[in-house]
Amino acid sequence: MKERLFFENDYAEGAHEKILQRLAQTNEEQLPGYGSDGYCSRAAEKIRAACGCPEGQVMFLVGGTQTNAVVIDAMLKSYEGVVSPQTGHVNQHEAGAIEYTGHKVLSLPQHEGKIAAEELETFLQGFWQDENHEHMVFPGMVYISHPTEYGTLYSRAELEKLSEICGRFHIPLYMDGARLGYGLMSPETDVTLSDIARCCDVFYIGGTKVGALCGEAVVFPKNNMPPHFLTVVKQHGALLAKGRLLGLQFDVLFTDDLYFQISSHAIRMAELLKEGFRRKGYSFFLDSPTNQQFIILENSKMEELKKEVVFSFWEKLDESHTVVRFATSWATKEEEIHRLVELL
Amino acid sequence: MKERLFFENDYAEGAHEKILQRLAQTNEEQLPGYGSDGYCSRAAEKIRAACGCPEGQVMFLVGGTQTNAVVIDAMLKSYEGVVSPQTGHVNQHEAGAIEYTGHKVLSLPQHEGKIAAEELETFLQGFWQDENHEHMVFPGMVYISHPTEYGTLYSRAELEKLSEICGRFHIPLYMDGARLGYGLMSPETDVTLSDIARCCDVFYIGGTKVGALCGEAVVFPKNNMPPHFLTVVKQHGALLAKGRLLGLQFDVLFTDDLYFQISSHAIRMAELLKEGFRRKGYSFFLDSPTNQQFIILENSKMEELKKEVVFSFWEKLDESHTVVRFATSWATKEEEIHRLVELL
Amino acid sequence: MKERLFFENDYAEGAHEKILQRLAQTNEEQLPGYGSDGYCSRAAEKIRAACGCPEGQVMFLVGGTQTNAVVIDAMLKSYEGVVSPQTGHVNQHEAGAIEYTGHKVLSLPQHEGKIAAEELETFLQGFWQDENHEHMVFPGMVYISHPTEYGTLYSRAELEKLSEICGRFHIPLYMDGARLGYGLMSPETDVTLSDIARCCDVFYIGGTKVGALCGEAVVFPKNNMPPHFLTVVKQHGALLAKGRLLGLQFDVLFTDDLYFQISSHAIRMAELLKEGFRRKGYSFFLDSPTNQQFIILENSKMEELKKEVVFSFWEKLDESHTVVRFATSWATKEEEIHRLVELL
Amino acid sequence: MKERLFFENDYAEGAHEKILQRLAQTNEEQLPGYGSDGYCSRAAEKIRAACGCPEGQVMFLVGGTQTNAVVIDAMLKSYEGVVSPQTGHVNQHEAGAIEYTGHKVLSLPQHEGKIAAEELETFLQGFWQDENHEHMVFPGMVYISHPTEYGTLYSRAELEKLSEICGRFHIPLYMDGARLGYGLMSPETDVTLSDIARCCDVFYIGGTKVGALCGEAVVFPKNNMPPHFLTVVKQHGALLAKGRLLGLQFDVLFTDDLYFQISSHAIRMAELLKEGFRRKGYSFFLDSPTNQQFIILENSKMEELKKEVVFSFWEKLDESHTVVRFATSWATKEEEIHRLVELL
Repeated sequence: MKERLFFENDYAEGAHEKILQRLAQTNEEQLPGYGSDGYCSRAAEKIRAACGCPEGQVMFLVGGTQTNAVVIDAMLKSYEGVVSPQTGHVNQHEAGAIEYTGHKVLSLPQHEGKIAAEELETFLQGFWQDENHEHMVFPGMVYISHPTEYGTLYSRAELEKLSEICGRFHIPLYMDGARLGYGLMSPETDVTLSDIARCCDVFYIGGTKVGALCGEAVVFPKNNMPPHFLTVVKQHGALLAKGRLLGLQFDVLFTDDLYFQISSHAIRMAELLKEGFRRKGYSFFLDSPTNQQFIILENSKMEELKKEVVFSFWEKLDESHTVVRFATSWATKEEEIHRLVELL
Repeated sequence: MKERLFFENDYAEGAHEKILQRLAQTNEEQLPGYGSDGYCSRAAEKIRAACGCPEGQVMFLVGGTQTNAVVIDAMLKSYEGVVSPQTGHVNQHEAGAIEYTGHKVLSLPQHEGKIAAEELETFLQGFWQDENHEHMVFPGMVYISHPTEYGTLYSRAELEKLSEICGRFHIPLYMDGARLGYGLMSPETDVTLSDIARCCDVFYIGGTKVGALCGEAVVFPKNNMPPHFLTVVKQHGALLAKGRLLGLQFDVLFTDDLYFQISSHAIRMAELLKEGFRRKGYSFFLDSPTNQQFIILENSKMEELKKEVVFSFWEKLDESHTVVRFATSWATKEEEIHRLVELL
Repeated sequence: MKERLFFENDYAEGAHEKILQRLAQTNEEQLPGYGSDGYCSRAAEKIRAACGCPEGQVMFLVGGTQTNAVVIDAMLKSYEGVVSPQTGHVNQHEAGAIEYTGHKVLSLPQHEGKIAAEELETFLQGFWQDENHEHMVFPGMVYISHPTEYGTLYSRAELEKLSEICGRFHIPLYMDGARLGYGLMSPETDVTLSDIARCCDVFYIGGTKVGALCGEAVVFPKNNMPPHFLTVVKQHGALLAKGRLLGLQFDVLFTDDLYFQISSHAIRMAELLKEGFRRKGYSFFLDSPTNQQFIILENSKMEELKKEVVFSFWEKLDESHTVVRFATSWATKEEEIHRLVELL
Repeated sequence: MKERLFFENDYAEGAHEKILQRLAQTNEEQLPGYGSDGYCSRAAEKIRAACGCPEGQVMFLVGGTQTNAVVIDAMLKSYEGVVSPQTGHVNQHEAGAIEYTGHKVLSLPQHEGKIAAEELETFLQGFWQDENHEHMVFPGMVYISHPTEYGTLYSRAELEKLSEICGRFHIPLYMDGARLGYGLMSPETDVTLSDIARCCDVFYIGGTKVGALCGEAVVFPKNNMPPHFLTVVKQHGALLAKGRLLGLQFDVLFTDDLYFQISSHAIRMAELLKEGFRRKGYSFFLDSPTNQQFIILENSKMEELKKEVVFSFWEKLDESHTVVRFATSWATKEEEIHRLVELL
C-alpha cells in the first residue's frame, strides 16, 4: 500500500508543518486547561475577525461527529429533531450519534447532497398544519453540510433562502463545515465566511480535514452560545483537558490566511485532477466544485487503477461501471496528480 | 501569572519532547484513519506486553471523562449502574457524563478516595437480598481510580479482594488510570501493571496527565472488548479520525519504558516536595504516595504563597486553615521544587 | 359534536362491559402489585394457549407507544437501530419515543404500509457488505405493524419470508399488534396467532383499540424475554402499580374468545361500511381488509359529510379530492353504519 | 395468604366504588383521546379550585415513577440534575428512571425522609462558589416527597423556607405527592393544598395510592407548564390514549371532597392502629403522622405475626429487632384494625 498514490480521503497526513513547529515552540508553556488558555482566545479572536462577527463565540472541539452531536443536542429542545438531507453525514455515517442524544434526524430528499429550500418550506409548513403534530417530532433545527458529502456547494442565494425559512419558523440553521475551507476557496462559490456567519445560527470550521491534527471550531456568530455550553461539552465527554492543542492549531491556521491558502491549494489540485480525468475522456458522476471528485470508472479500469492508486468506492452505477471518489487535500502534491493522470 | 511557580495540576505543559519529535518525523506518512494505522497496532502490542496480557485488546480514546463514559456505558446493561466511591471522578467531576448515558452512579463511602472491600461486599449482598431489588438500579460494575482523586493507592491485596468480590457477583472491575504511571512508580506500591491486568476486567492507562498531548489507552485484558466497540465509540462522538495521533503517542511512551521513567521522575519530585513541606513543619491532610500532595496551610500563609505559586484549593479545613493540593508531573523541574521550598 | 356519527378512530369508548363488570366484582380483592397478581398470570396463561406457545412469556404494558419504546429498547444493543417501513407508527407518530431511548429508526420504503421482503434483504445485505458499516447504525431488529397504519395485512407467506430473513441476519422480528384482533378476524387473512408466535420474536396484542380501557400484552413466544425485563419496564416509567388492571382486562378478553368475537364484529361493521361506500359509487384509496377504511371524497362532499359524521383527514389527494379514514371498532353499532350510508 | 390481614401497602385494592360506577355510566360515551375530553378538563378545573390556583395547569399521568421521570426531565436543562433526599423515591426505588432520562440525582442527607433547608442552602451555595462547578452537574430542581417515604411531613414553615431557597437560586421546587391526600388530612399538618400550590413550582396529587385504579394529577400552579409538555409526555411513552380513564377518576375524586374524605379515613385508621400498638407497648421507629407506620418488632413476634398479617419489612434494627411498616389506606376497614390489635 505504501507505494500507491493516495487519493482516498483528506485526512491521511498529520498536520501542516507550521502547526507542528508551533506545538514544539510552545510545548513547555504552562497553561490553564479546558480551553481557557491564551491560544484558544487568540484563535477565537482571529476566527471572529475572519467571519466578520465581532460578537460571535467560538468553542473548539476535537472531531466532526462529536461536534455535530454536541451542537445539535445543545440547541434542540428535548422534543425536537434535526432536519437533514437524506445523505447528511449525521443521518448516515455517525453511527447514530444524534439519536444517541435522544433526537430524531428528520430526513428530506437530497439533491446532489443538498436540500431544496422549497422542500424544506413545504415540510415545515406541513408539520405545523398537521392536526396531530403534537404526536410527532418537532423540526427544531436544520442541518446542512457545506461542502456536502458530494462536494457540492450552496449558492449565497440558496443559503439566504434557507436562512430566511429557518428564521420564519424560528429554528436555527446549522452548517457542518468539516471541509469548509475547500468550499470557501472554490472558484465557483459566491459564499464567504461572512455570508455564513450572517445566514447560519451556528456552524463549524473544520480543522481535521484542512490541515490540523484534530479540531473543529464551532462558531455561534450571534452571541447565541447556549448557556453553560462548556458543561454540556464536558457532559458529552468532549472537553479536551489540554485545550491548547486545539486553540493553537486554529491560531496557526488563522494567522496569515494559512487556512485559506492550504484550502486553495487543495482546490487547485482538484482542478488539475478534474482536468486530467476530463482530458482522458472519463465522465463525472456529478459536477463537484471542491476537493472531492466523483468519477465513473469502467470496472476493469477500476481494478487496474487500484493496483497503483488508493481511492474510495462510492457506489455501483451499473453492471459494468462504478462511481469512485478521488479526494485532494492541503497535503496533495502536484506531482502526485501528474503521476495519477499518466495512469488514466 | 506567568512568573509564578506552577503546581496546580499535571496537565499544564504540552507533551514529552520525544512525542513531538516523532509526530514531526511521521507527519507526511499517509495512514488509514480511525485507529487502524500501524502506530496504533504497535502501541497496542507494546501495551499488551507491558501488561502481560497477550490476548488483551487496546483502544485509544482522547480524554478521561470520555473514556469513563464510553467504557462504562459499553459494559453496563441498560438497567445497571456503576458503583463508585463517593469521591470518584465519575461521581463528582464529569458533569454527569455517566448519567447522560442513562446509568446511575451508585456511591459507596470513600476512605481517602478508596472503597472498602467489606463495604462493597455488604452493598452487593444487600442489593441481591432486597426483595424489591427489581425496582432498583442493579450494580453492574465497580469503578475505582488508581491513584485516587486523593493520590492514594490500593494495595495488591486490596485489589485482589475487590477483584474476587466482583468475580463472585459477576460484574466487571474497572480502573480509571488517569494517573496510572504515577501510581505504578510510587515506592510504596506493590501493584504492577500485570496485577492490574489480572485483577481488572478493563482499565485505562492515562496519557493526558502523563506526558501526552491527549489520549488514554483502554485495555480489555481478557479478550473481553464489547462487540462492535468501535461503533459504540463512534456513537459517543469519541472516535478520532486521525487515530495515529493517539497510537503514536502511546507507541513513544511505551518504547524504552518512557512512560515509567517520566512517571518515576514525577514521583521523585513529589518526594522532594513532601520532604520540603515536612522539613518546614507543615502538616499533610493525608499521606499520599503519589504525585498529588494535600497540604494544610494556615490561611494567611496560603494567601502569601499564592503570590508566588499556583496550586489548587481543595477544601476548607477550619476557620483558619485550608487544604490545598500541590501536583508534580513528568514535566516538573527539580529546581522548581527548590524554589518552592525556599518560599515555605 | 355529540350528535354526529363517530367513525374517527377505534378508541373512543371505554371498555367492553364484561371488563367493567369484572373490575367491579374483583375490586375489593387485596392483590400484590406490579403484575404479580393472579389475574396477570391467568391472562398470560390464556394468551400462551391462544398463541400456541406454552413456553412463551407475557408482560402487560399500558399503551402502544410505551410498548414499542420499551420492547425495542430492551431488545436492541446500544449501537443498533430498528428497521421500520417509512410509515411505521414508530417512525411517524410517536413523538420520537424510539430515538429518545437512543436508537435510530432505519426507514425502508412502504407499500401500503408494509415492507417488502426483498427490499429488507437488500438493505441488510448492503449494510453488512458496506466497508464502512462500523460507522453506521447496525440494523438490530425489524418492526412491522399488523394491521398496518393503512389497515393492510401481511400474508402468512410474507410473514414467513420476513421471519426467515431476520433469522438469517440474527435479528428479531417485532410485530406491533395495536389492532391485532382486527387483523386476525379479517376474512382475507391466512395468518393466525400461532403463525405470529412462530414467525415473530416478540409482538404485542393490542387491548386499547380492541375493547380494553388500556393495556397491551407483550408476548415473547420463545422463552426469550430479555433478562430483568421488569426492571427495564420500571426504568421506562411503564410499570403499573395495580397491574391487576391490565391482567384482569386481558383475562376477560381471552375468556370464551371475547377478543376474537368483538374483533370479528368490528370487521363485519367495516364490511358493511365498505359495501355502503362501494354501492354509492365512492372509490377507495387502497383495499383494506380490516377496520380502517380509506375513502376518497370529493372536497365539497367531505365538508357536507363533516356536519353529520366524524372521521379522520388522511391526506390531500389532489385539488378537489381528499383521502379520509373511517374506522369501525368493537363498539360500532350496525345502525350507525346504516345511518352513515344514508348520508352518502 | 388470602385470609391474612393486609397492611402491606396502600395500593392493594382496585378503586373507590364511585369511580367504578362512573366508569360504567360513561362507558359508551365517544370521547376524544389523549386527555382532550371533558372529564379531563372538568377534573383539572376542580383541582385548580382545590389548589387555589386559577391559572394553574393540570396534566394527568398514569403512575408515580412515570410522573417523576417525565416532570423532572421536562423541567431540567440537559446539564442539570435534581436534588433529592438520599431516601427519596427517585433516588432509591425507581430503577434509575431519572438517570435513564440523562439526569443525575444529587442526594442530600435525609432526616426522617426530609431534607433540611440549611443543608440545601449550603449545598447550593457550595456549588455556585466552587471554581470548578462548570465541570459538575448543576442543581436544577429540588425534589421532595410529602408525605415522605417515612410518612413524615414538612411543616408549612419548612416548605416556605425550601421554596424561598429554590426561588433565590432560580430552580423549581417539585413535590412528589404520591400520598398527598394522607399528608393533607393528617391532624398534625399545617400545610394545605393552597400552601403547596404557592410554595411549589410543580407537584402531583397521587391517585394510585388514594382511591384510583391508576393516575396522578400533575399541577403546574403558576401557568408554568413546559412548552409542548404533551409531546414530552408522549415521547416518554406516558400519554394515555383513553385519557378519560384518568380525567374521570380525578373528576370523581375531586367531587364533593371525596379525595379528602377517603384520605381522612385512612388517617383515622392509622391513628387507631398507632393507638393499638402503643397500648400494647410497642415502640415506633419514628413518629409518623400519616398512613404509614414504622414499628419496631422483636423478631420472634414478627415471625408469629406474619402468620396472620401481611406487612412490609423495612430494615433490621439490631440482632433481635426489625423495623416493619404497616400501611392503612382509603380501603382499610376499622374492623381490620381491631383484629390486628387483638393479635398484638
